[in-house]
Amino acid sequence: MLFDRDAAPAVLSPEQEEVVHQQALRILEEIGIDILHDEARRLLAEAGQAIDGDRVRWDRDFVMEQVAKAPRTFTLHARNPARSVEVGGGTPLWMNVGGPPFWSDLDGGRREGTLEGHDIIVKLTHAADVLNCVQIGAVEPVNLPVHNRHLDMEYSGIRLSDKPYTTYGTSGPKARDGIELARILHGGDLGEKTALLGIVNSLSPLIWDFRMADALMTWAEANQAVVVTPFLLAGATAPVSVSGGIAQQVAEALSGVALAQLVRPGCPCLYGSFFTATDMRTGAPAFGTPESVFGVLAGAQMARRYGLPYRGGGGLASSPAVDAQAAAETQMMLWATMLAGTDVVLHAAGWLEGGLVASLEKFALDVELLRQFRRQMEGIGFSEEELAFEALEAVGPGGLWLAAPHTRAHFKEWLYLSPLFLTQDFATWKMSGAETTDVVANRLWKQLLASYEDPGIDPAVDEELRAYIERRKQEPPEPED
Amino acid sequence: MLFDRDAAPAVLSPEQEEVVHQQALRILEEIGIDILHDEARRLLAEAGQAIDGDRVRWDRDFVMEQVAKAPRTFTLHARNPARSVEVGGGTPLWMNVGGPPFWSDLDGGRREGTLEGHDIIVKLTHAADVLNCVQIGAVEPVNLPVHNRHLDMEYSGIRLSDKPYTTYGTSGPKARDGIELARILHGGDLGEKTALLGIVNSLSPLIWDFRMADALMTWAEANQAVVVTPFLLAGATAPVSVSGGIAQQVAEALSGVALAQLVRPGCPCLYGSFFTATDMRTGAPAFGTPESVFGVLAGAQMARRYGLPYRGGGGLASSPAVDAQAAAETQMMLWATMLAGTDVVLHAAGWLEGGLVASLEKFALDVELLRQFRRQMEGIGFSEEELAFEALEAVGPGGLWLAAPHTRAHFKEWLYLSPLFLTQDFATWKMSGAETTDVVANRLWKQLLASYEDPGIDPAVDEELRAYIERRKQEPPEPED
Repeated sequence: MLFDRDAAPAVLSPEQEEVVHQQALRILEEIGIDILHDEARRLLAEAGQAIDGDRVRWDRDFVMEQVAKAPRTFTLHARNPARSVEVGGGTPLWMNVGGPPFWSDLDGGRREGTLEGHDIIVKLTHAADVLNCVQIGAVEPVNLPVHNRHLDMEYSGIRLSDKPYTTYGTSGPKARDGIELARILHGGDLGEKTALLGIVNSLSPLIWDFRMADALMTWAEANQAVVVTPFLLAGATAPVSVSGGIAQQVAEALSGVALAQLVRPGCPCLYGSFFTATDMRTGAPAFGTPESVFGVLAGAQMARRYGLPYRGGGGLASSPAVDAQAAAETQMMLWATMLAGTDVVLHAAGWLEGGLVASLEKFALDVELLRQFRRQMEGIGFSEEELAFEALEAVGPGGLWLAAPHTRAHFKEWLYLSPLFLTQDFATWKMSGAETTDVVANRLWKQLLASYEDPGIDPAVDEELRAYIERRKQEPPEPED
Repeated sequence: MLFDRDAAPAVLSPEQEEVVHQQALRILEEIGIDILHDEARRLLAEAGQAIDGDRVRWDRDFVMEQVAKAPRTFTLHARNPARSVEVGGGTPLWMNVGGPPFWSDLDGGRREGTLEGHDIIVKLTHAADVLNCVQIGAVEPVNLPVHNRHLDMEYSGIRLSDKPYTTYGTSGPKARDGIELARILHGGDLGEKTALLGIVNSLSPLIWDFRMADALMTWAEANQAVVVTPFLLAGATAPVSVSGGIAQQVAEALSGVALAQLVRPGCPCLYGSFFTATDMRTGAPAFGTPESVFGVLAGAQMARRYGLPYRGGGGLASSPAVDAQAAAETQMMLWATMLAGTDVVLHAAGWLEGGLVASLEKFALDVELLRQFRRQMEGIGFSEEELAFEALEAVGPGGLWLAAPHTRAHFKEWLYLSPLFLTQDFATWKMSGAETTDVVANRLWKQLLASYEDPGIDPAVDEELRAYIERRKQEPPEPED
């Protein structure tokens, strides 16, 4: 079966995998990691790790013992229980882009992010049946205050969709807000429930800064899932060599997982991989390159070694337009993502221009690609009717399958039909305006948006969510550092 | 290692593979195949096969015995011996598009094929280091006489490149011309040398027509490689179900291989797969769909079962423009092609609009994608310098890889740099004309063409080639049916 997590292609030989593993442990032991968080260092010191100023040098056995405490799978609870997903259990989480300061579509052009844009992308994500998760922060409403706009984004995702979601938190206080909102959403108490995926990025190379460490510890303490993702750009935050970069990734990822497990043994943690090249002509990250394909697949291999669910890949592209470059880069990334059997795919739909832009036409393109991958995941059917021996006998040598009852009976069900990729003859295409894919995609996201159905929300819960947000907006900003 | 032929992902379980195999043999035995060629039927009758009019019903043991005679690998000899390739030996043959009646580029637009267009594509193929084979018939010079333009195309490929090539022959007489020209090219006698790949398509479902059977037998007799490729469009020439389509493919492919082996035991034969969906909205083939991905991978699996080198996939796309659709479709096909460990890839560069157009911008796009795949085939480097432990130690937590001596020493060699896929910031991109990929590709194919170096040819050989062609053009057309 294609895209089987347990049959992912090995880009590292067993020996190479071991070399990466040993080097990562050596990095942790000999070079160490700066942890800019007093409480985290105190916990690590208590656990016997060597502390020297901010520097922590890790005992390899300690690290591996901690990592082993993280579960192989866990349930990510949605407010609609039918939409909860067993992460690591074979159903990948696919979600919209997150983080861009700009959004764009062919009508409105490229413009600064707004809450309206965030709402639209959440609605598109909710309406797209191939997406089963919402990423909060779909586009940054940069016109809103930076210290409390996370509350508006969180509400946008919670209110407009009942799919599971990643929370925004990029600091301890923001992480706590996300947890409080999730508690309200789930009836006042989460108990042991994991209802959030929280993403933390190490400050590469080899630093956990205060905010990220604080968010990580906050989520871990509340038994929410921590996606530990070193943000590695070869030539900027990592070496220009893939093997060296992956070793650095493992060291940083394992340190984050170990810290989370120290805070709360058994809390869900993911191994996150984000490794790509820097384009030295511009200093910008280049997505879809061979390095990023290697990064996705090698990261998955290491995550499996450690028994951790895997976050990686996505529909990442560098192109500023929804053109051939964007599609080519996205396919490089998505094929690697799919082959790796990736459990959690952030940025699966809508990512453009190196993540600076959430594009609605790119969203429609990505949703179409994901639909095709989902069809491929279903595999080849082998019913008697599909094997079609009797039908071939009836058609016979030189017969016309086009006119066969077998074809008429089954083509609608069995032949994949793309609403985006068309096959008109050239004259028709020319006459109807010679539309390129982005133009067709513009119609498609509008159709998708028009198909959006509000999942509704319990009015009492809604009132409580709004009251919490209102109250927090009245309070002075909390220090985050 | 990615793209290892021996570790290709299995889209068919062992049981499913057996079901396909058994059904193919049952098709050959019970339904049979019409062979519209008296001499072929005579040979098959002599070999004990059941003949009923044009219909041949095949004994399964006979078929498998014949197929087993084909070699697993063979050398395809180029006139420049340094360019000869062991087909099936791990180095895939990648070549330009073949067959389109139109060609196009952004300057000249879409227009009817000419010999000038053919020459340009041969030159681009020769200049592109990632392509190691020329496909004769890069674009059909439709203004030249149909009965002898194959001679001009063959000369174009032979004269302008010294890479190995596929011959054009679509009938016995044309196949014989190709063989005669190859004899001249190789010093007057081919002996046992295989210097040509000849492509034959069954007339699906379940017919070998006279021309194709005649070409097949002509090449087999001369020990030239026969690429037996059923041309299957689900819903037109095959059922709308993948498993039924692949079973039909195996039946047709094995019948062609068996016939070739009957003509000359041990002659090189390839299992060819060309299976895609019909877009029922237009009646046109749709490339890059899930069915075509399945087709490429399932065909490869069956070819390996039979110990035959595999031809399949390519840079196939339906889109009429070099846009996101074209790139997305091409990537679907190329990833499947690469994962399948495909030995011979026709149409790897330049295919557009369902094969109706040879596009020069698409050629540049495809060459870039192939370069990236080639880099991926090389795998991840594991030298001490690439593992970069000492370099990381020197950079340290919070250090700058960008400024590190390790980065400066190695980025040019190790970071993949694309001439086509750019990462300018948005303002720069806008100011410099907001170029989409096709516009950049237009510059790239011109650069590639400008870099073309004539491989030259022995003047005596050239004279003999020209004399042969001149003589053949004076002769009345040979009957082909």
